[in-house]
This record gives sequence, C-alpha cells and structure tokens, in this order.
Amino acid sequence: MTSADLTASTTTEAADRFRALRREQDALLSRRNERVEGGNGIYHRFRYPVLTAAHTPLAWRYDLSPVTNPFALERMGINAVFNPGAIKLDGRYLMVARVEGADRKSFFAVAESADGIDGWRFWDYPVRLPQTDDPDVNVYDMRLTAHEDGWIYGVFCTERKDWRNPQDLSAAVAQAGIIRTHDLVTWERLPDLVTRSEQQRNVVLHPEFVGGRYGFYTRPQDGFIEAGSGGGIGWGLCDDITRPIVLEQRVIEPRRYHTITESKNGQGPPPLRTEKGWLHLAHGVRNTAAGLRYVLYLFVSDLESPWVVTHRPGGYLIAPEGEERVGDVSNVVFSCGWIADDDGRVLIYYASSDTRIHVAESSVARLLDYAVSTPEDPHTSAGSVEQRWELIERNRANRGWDGDER
Amino acid sequence: MTSADLTASTTTEAADRFRALRREQDALLSRRNERVEGGNGIYHRFRYPVLTAAHTPLAWRYDLSPVTNPFALERMGINAVFNPGAIKLDGRYLMVARVEGADRKSFFAVAESADGIDGWRFWDYPVRLPQTDDPDVNVYDMRLTAHEDGWIYGVFCTERKDWRNPQDLSAAVAQAGIIRTHDLVTWERLPDLVTRSEQQRNVVLHPEFVGGRYGFYTRPQDGFIEAGSGGGIGWGLCDDITRPIVLEQRVIEPRRYHTITESKNGQGPPPLRTEKGWLHLAHGVRNTAAGLRYVLYLFVSDLESPWVVTHRPGGYLIAPEGEERVGDVSNVVFSCGWIADDDGRVLIYYASSDTRIHVAESSVARLLDYAVSTPEDPHTSAGSVEQRWELIERNRANRGWDGDER
Repeated sequence: MTSADLTASTTTEAADRFRALRREQDALLSRRNERVEGGNGIYHRFRYPVLTAAHTPLAWRYDLSPVTNPFALERMGINAVFNPGAIKLDGRYLMVARVEGADRKSFFAVAESADGIDGWRFWDYPVRLPQTDDPDVNVYDMRLTAHEDGWIYGVFCTERKDWRNPQDLSAAVAQAGIIRTHDLVTWERLPDLVTRSEQQRNVVLHPEFVGGRYGFYTRPQDGFIEAGSGGGIGWGLCDDITRPIVLEQRVIEPRRYHTITESKNGQGPPPLRTEKGWLHLAHGVRNTAAGLRYVLYLFVSDLESPWVVTHRPGGYLIAPEGEERVGDVSNVVFSCGWIADDDGRVLIYYASSDTRIHVAESSVARLLDYAVSTPEDPHTSAGSVEQRWELIERNRANRGWDGDER
Repeated sequence: MTSADLTASTTTEAADRFRALRREQDALLSRRNERVEGGNGIYHRFRYPVLTAAHTPLAWRYDLSPVTNPFALERMGINAVFNPGAIKLDGRYLMVARVEGADRKSFFAVAESADGIDGWRFWDYPVRLPQTDDPDVNVYDMRLTAHEDGWIYGVFCTERKDWRNPQDLSAAVAQAGIIRTHDLVTWERLPDLVTRSEQQRNVVLHPEFVGGRYGFYTRPQDGFIEAGSGGGIGWGLCDDITRPIVLEQRVIEPRRYHTITESKNGQGPPPLRTEKGWLHLAHGVRNTAAGLRYVLYLFVSDLESPWVVTHRPGGYLIAPEGEERVGDVSNVVFSCGWIADDDGRVLIYYASSDTRIHVAESSVARLLDYAVSTPEDPHTSAGSVEQRWELIERNRANRGWDGDER
C-alpha cells in the first residue's frame, strides 16, 4: 500500500481503479457457465451462480467520478441478489431479482439473458416501484405471472411496521403487493391483496382464469384456517384484480408433521401448464438445532381444478448443496421463478441462502416423470423402508441389481 | 443439450447412464482413506468421510430398469447418512447407520468394512424394523450394546406425534425403542423403555449386569429430576429387559453453566471397559446466535459403580472442524458408536452436521492418559488461567520451555 492510498488518491489512481473494477466485472459477466454432470438425472446444476451482488452495475454502487470520489470508494454497497421472478418475453429471458443493499432494504431490478443460462446482465436502472397510500417499508420475492388477461403481473411481499407493537422493532405486517406491466418497464400498482389473514407471504397469481375469476395461491395463517390443518398453501378466488379481495382461502397443500414441510411451506413460482396437470414448485421448511432449513419440492394439480393436488412425490427436489449451504441466511434454497421454454426445457431459478441466484435445468417431461413415478411420502420410517424394499426387489427381479443390465 | 435430454431418452441412453453412475460409485467405494497427520496426538482424523449418502446402493435410489425409468431419474433420494451405532462382530467391523431419505424419514442400515477404516459398504437391504403396537413415525441414533447376557441390543430413539398439541406440527414425543439380535440380520423388538420422563433421547444400555440388573444411561427431563440440577446424563436400573421399566433415574453427569454442556448433554456409545474404569464418550451442547453447537467429550466412571464418575477431563475431545462444520444441521459432531479393537485401538465413528460419518482413530491407552491427565473444567476464566500458569511454570522448570528439552 502506498502512502497515497492512505491519505488522498490522485484522480489518476481513482480512474485506474475504476478501469480495473470494470475489467473485473466484464470478466465476470462474460464468463461462460458449466453444466455440472452427474446428479440425480432430474435436473442439472451449473457450476457458477447466474446472478450475484457482484453482477450489479458499478454505476449503482460507485460514484464513478475520480474528482468527487478520489479514493474510488464504494458509496452504496449491494449485499445480495436473490429470489427472482422469471419470465420469457419476446425471446428474451428475464428475471426480476430481489436486490438487497448494504442497508438491508430490498428492491426489484430486471436482468436479461439471451439463453437463460449465460450472460445475465442487469438493465440500467432498478425498478421504481409505484407506491400505494400506505408506503411499503420493504419489498421482496416477486412472482411474475403472464396472465391470460394479457397483463404480466408481479405479486410480491410488502412489509410494514406493525404499530400495534411499537416497542417490538421486529414486529411487521407482511402482505401481498400487486403490480402489472406489459414490458417490465412501465408498472401499474394495484391495491394490495385483501384477505382475512393478518399476514401473507408467498402469494402467487394463477396464470389462467378459473370460472372467469382470478385465482391466487396464498398462505393463510393460523386462526383463519380450519382447526387442525396447521396451515399450508392456500387457494382463493377474486372477481376484480383492480380491487383484489379473496374472502375464502382453502388449504390445498397442507404442511405435515415430520416431513420437509413441518414448519412452513409456500408456493414458489406460478405453476406451469402441462398435459398431465399444473406443475408446481414450492418450498418446505423444517426446524433444526441450527435454525430453519428450506428445500424445494414439486407437486402437480388438476388442469381444470388447480386446487386439487393429484401428485405429491415424496421428499425434496432441490436441497442446499456445497457452497449453497452458506450465506446470509444459511441452509436455504428458495425459488420464485422458472421458465418453461418452447422446446420443453425448464429453467429453475433458485437462490441459495438469501445470497445469490443459481439456475437448474430440467424439462417438463423429466419433471412430470419424477412427479408421477416418485412415491408419496409414507409418513413413517417403516413406510419409507417398505418403499425401498419394493424398489430393491424390483431391481433384483429386473436383473438391474448390482450392475448387471441384461 | 441434445433433444433426447429434453423429451424422451432411449433405453440405451438410460443404460449408459446407469453404467456411468455405477463406475462413479465404484470409484468412491474403493477410494482409500488417508490418515490426517498432526492433530492433538489424542486421535487422528481421516481425510474423507467413511459413509455418506453417495455410499448408499444405487438400487435403493434408482429404478435401474431402462424400460420403466427411461430418463434414468433418481426415484427416492437419500439425503444423509449419520449417527451410527458400531460393533465388531466375528472379525467384521459393522455400523448401523441412520439413513435419512429425501422425505426426511430416518431408518437403519448396516454397513460393513474389513478393517474399520476403508471399504465401508452397505448390506443389500436396509433394516426392516419390527414395530410395536404404537408405530414409530421416525427412528434414529441407534446405540449397539453387546451385553453380557449374550444378546446384541440396539437402543434407538422412536419419535411420534404429540397429539396433545395437534396444532403444533413440531410437537413430538421421543422415547427409547429397543431391539435385539445376534447377527444384525434378525431383530426382535422389545417394548419401548418406560421411565418417568416425558421425553427420552440418548438412552444407552450398559454392557454388563449391575447387581444382576440391566443398567441404562438416560436423559431425564426437567420435572422428574432433583430440583435445580438442570438435567444431564442419567442412570437407572431395570430388572427385566423384556419389560423394560426404569423407575428411578439419578443424574450422574450433570450439565453445567458456562461449559460445553450448558444447554444439553447425553451419553454417546456404550462405555468401554478399561483397567482404569469405564470410558465414556458423550456429547455436550451449548447455544449460540447461530443455533446449537454440539461437541464430543470424554469421562471415566468406576468399574464396580458405573454411575460414579471418577475423571472429568475439561473441555471437548472433538469439535467440528473444516468441512465438518457445515451440513444439514451445521456446527454438530455427534457419536453413537465406537469400537475398541483387540490391539487397543479405538475407532470413534462420529457424524458431522447431521450429514456424513467420519472415523477418528485413537487407543485405550491414549484416551485414558487424556482422561486422567487433563485437568477438570475449573468453571471460571481465572481458574483456566491458573491451570495454564501451572502448566507453563512446570514446563519452564522442566526446561521444556520453548521446545528445548535438555
């Protein structure tokens, strides 16, 4: 370190540093990702995250003038980029990521890629979210739904201080905010969703009308659900999206004792229409001695009646692995966005440990085969062993046992 | 990516993938472990875990028929392999591991090695655990005791929903289940242990009769123990192992404020008989801002009166290190099994972060020397400093100071 570093930098040194930062970021943004071979056959991971805090434009973080920023300091750090909604629009792959500043405030920003895997870059400006009369304190986890009414909706969590508990600084009210757009550039804010639940997170708009009404996946809280159900993913209908009210919620995918959903669960992205039903990605949460553990799981519901779950493959689809295990909130994978491509490919965008965004690649055919052929959770250890014995005996009968296919 | 990947695979491609998976697993199973040199002299770690989820047979996870599984997808994932009981039987080193599926259910499976370090392989089928009239929901953490009555006992935790709290999906009742065998193949289930404690975990059967009765290490819960003691490792006797009832539990190894056992402790494997007493391995738990931290520690009890602790070396023997620190439940080492070999070698099988199994190698002589020569926890910082001053001054007097023995 030179003495100039310690006291005052020259504008030349600052300009040099900005050039170096730019080269470094260009290298990051143009690095090609690599498919991780192996795995369980259901999906492939990729070696590198596709979006991180380091992907955000330098102009969002630095005063890039060597005159007013002679030390070339970062002025407003970005802490994390995670939990994106995703959509394919006019041939472009787009995410609306949750970007969190060093100040812990989240906001939304659009990133774009030509193929959904490589070259993800943020647009020039983050989203200026229109406000309601009751301003959001924090916003996060937007699900993008291309609805058959012609709009693209963004449903996100808006959080505000709970003033009934002024002393408890952590007491907050979470509700579902709604915006809509045609291009992810111009956004119209609608009123927040009204339900009978004091808190709502993980609210997702169903892509099609159901009996002429808008369908929402919700998460009703205890006290507003049938006794004994213990909560889960809910379903409700709304007549007018510009005055969004869901009076009745029914739990369609409950959480259950000693499963991956024991503590919580919630809908991920909007479901995908397939020939065998609506394909859903969701998260399940259990408690551990080291805090909550979030995994992703799949289920299928009926095409005509999206609230009727038809297939529940047991266990998780994606759990944190390797460097995914550790981050701002460790032991978490979470997804708000996936894209079903024209060729049947499915790109699952998921964040790890509230820190960075990854992509997993699968296909509708593979996910459906997984959903249909994986046995349901038997809810006991003995039941799980019976399922495995059945599989092992079938493998032995098929001579697939021990490496000999014939 | 080829179009075959996205839509439908041929049986040839599936067969190719199964062959590749098998090659990959063969390489893993035949990899020789490497002793990690250095360390504290009390034990050696080894470079690789000895059992992981990837060690479980492919036939437990995949439908290996390319006809019925054309995509070659994993049908029933295995999430983790941890917390094994261990025993040496007819010259074979055996573990009964806790195997956890993607569905979060644990079950037991026997793995075998010729030398206790390398080549661990699971037997063909997991254990079909006989049930009582009140079926287990989840089972885990089996301790194997070769009892002088001629049976090998497995004492494990059996968990069931607590129906007094139907709304709280996490409310469960944990008790000690008991099975016995001569060969780890055929198992006889006995009734669950009855104690005055609402919950029991970490129950371990003592290997010898004590006054003609069976001795159990237990963990009595608050309310059923002497006021103020705050719990710990308990001890109780039972007349008839086929009607296992322990009416009285006394705390023989309490947990203590500001030690490694502040939050919880529990007996690990059954103790080992040595000339200087019963050698015990136990776990201690403290709370942190990031959740609980589990470490392993040693103590010695009297040969005639196993409930009388004679040596308590201060602090932990094994704490999570390197990759052991991170997993499904991070910051945990836990042991239910060790083997004292004929040559005095002791193999400690311990799991890290509820994810994988490691082995540490020591000897009865080293562990006893450690237990006898390490000062007890002085319970204050000043006391710890006094212990170190005493050590330092002794070293200076011995001219052992700074590495120069003369």
